[in-house]
Amino acid sequence: MTQASTQGTVYGVGLGPGSQDLMSVRADRLIRGATHIAYFRKKGRKGHARSIVEGLIAPGAIELPMEYPVTTEIPFEDPQYNALLSEFYSRCVTQLIEIANAGCNVVVLCEGDPFFYGSFMHLYTRLLNQVPVSVVPGITGMSAAWTATGQPITWGDDILTVLMGTLPEEMLAQHIADTDALVVMKIGRNLKKLRRALKQAGREDQAWLIEYAAMEQQRVLPLVEVGESVPYFSIVLIHGNGRRP
Amino acid sequence: MTQASTQGTVYGVGLGPGSQDLMSVRADRLIRGATHIAYFRKKGRKGHARSIVEGLIAPGAIELPMEYPVTTEIPFEDPQYNALLSEFYSRCVTQLIEIANAGCNVVVLCEGDPFFYGSFMHLYTRLLNQVPVSVVPGITGMSAAWTATGQPITWGDDILTVLMGTLPEEMLAQHIADTDALVVMKIGRNLKKLRRALKQAGREDQAWLIEYAAMEQQRVLPLVEVGESVPYFSIVLIHGNGRRP
Repeated sequence: MTQASTQGTVYGVGLGPGSQDLMSVRADRLIRGATHIAYFRKKGRKGHARSIVEGLIAPGAIELPMEYPVTTEIPFEDPQYNALLSEFYSRCVTQLIEIANAGCNVVVLCEGDPFFYGSFMHLYTRLLNQVPVSVVPGITGMSAAWTATGQPITWGDDILTVLMGTLPEEMLAQHIADTDALVVMKIGRNLKKLRRALKQAGREDQAWLIEYAAMEQQRVLPLVEVGESVPYFSIVLIHGNGRRP
Repeated sequence: MTQASTQGTVYGVGLGPGSQDLMSVRADRLIRGATHIAYFRKKGRKGHARSIVEGLIAPGAIELPMEYPVTTEIPFEDPQYNALLSEFYSRCVTQLIEIANAGCNVVVLCEGDPFFYGSFMHLYTRLLNQVPVSVVPGITGMSAAWTATGQPITWGDDILTVLMGTLPEEMLAQHIADTDALVVMKIGRNLKKLRRALKQAGREDQAWLIEYAAMEQQRVLPLVEVGESVPYFSIVLIHGNGRRP
């Protein structure tokens, strides 16, 4: 493509937790009107972000699936992992810039909220100062999770702490003990460690597991009733119990 | 009103941070279709929640403003404050139940996300087991705030802590020192104390102030450049800086 007189914009659009009608009106409008739509997916999959917008995309819109190069999980600590991912993000950015330089807008579909532990951030930092970028916030998966429990997450001056299950056990235990309300994401293979940390903090009985929040398969149960494995879309939380009239 | 054969539902609908097109498609649909709409406001004001939905409400829809009885601020600790509020919430709930018992649905407008430090929670707990209640999550004000800064709030396994400015200084300082990413809400008269706590934690230079996130008057600036007072819709945050490829 050749450079157009006006660059297009790259929109990082938060889709929210996974139910189509929980995306924002702005997101809905941008996606329906998009001529170019990009999204991450695992090789051989349709992609979760793409599935959420099923039926919204205009006929004739050009789709740009961005397929992760890391299929079998290389440990995070491996420098090869970072190198592969970094190269992948650079390739994606090259494609997005090419579209924008041709004068077209492109919508990048982002699960949840783009700036909250999102993959889009890795594109965003590489796009800055090269093309116009606009970010549309979304409802987080954790909002859908606490809504699913039917109990408010925070009252009055409750402290809320958000932790990733990938953190070391001691650090998890310390922060779980020091907070009122708690959200833990990236559970997966960290479930056993997380249980031990919750127990050490004396709070195992207060924890809930929410699977597939706001999606069809949504399930809410006390963590003590959960078996040895949980699906990828799982969040653990503890409700705050602060001051209220 | 007399009891209808089927009770209506009370919908607690998250409006998001304040821009009309940042509410969810579900919220938009419920508000446009509502026959009864309730919202909190201060006496003599239009109400911020009501302002957000200006132009969406159907002609003929019945509005139920719920006016806070506490105009001059009684200190939180005063038992009279809690008694007044508790009585007020009970009165509101009586009205909502009356509408639902007459077979009508009623939409309660909620700024931000209803279960995240929201006022609706005080109605919610009193409505449970009396009428059907459904909660629609929303984009939080803090999501709009970090989006406004043009920098992601959390990367990799960053820890995010959400604090209220009303907490004691020592507790603020401790938690500010112990987290990667930070959000502080309810700044107002707590600004000086918050500054001291940030300084004690050695992080004053990293803090941003966001006023009116996602609204027309939105303003983002380093906290060190902020004067002695900030508007009610203000959020302080520090970005995480975690692992990234």
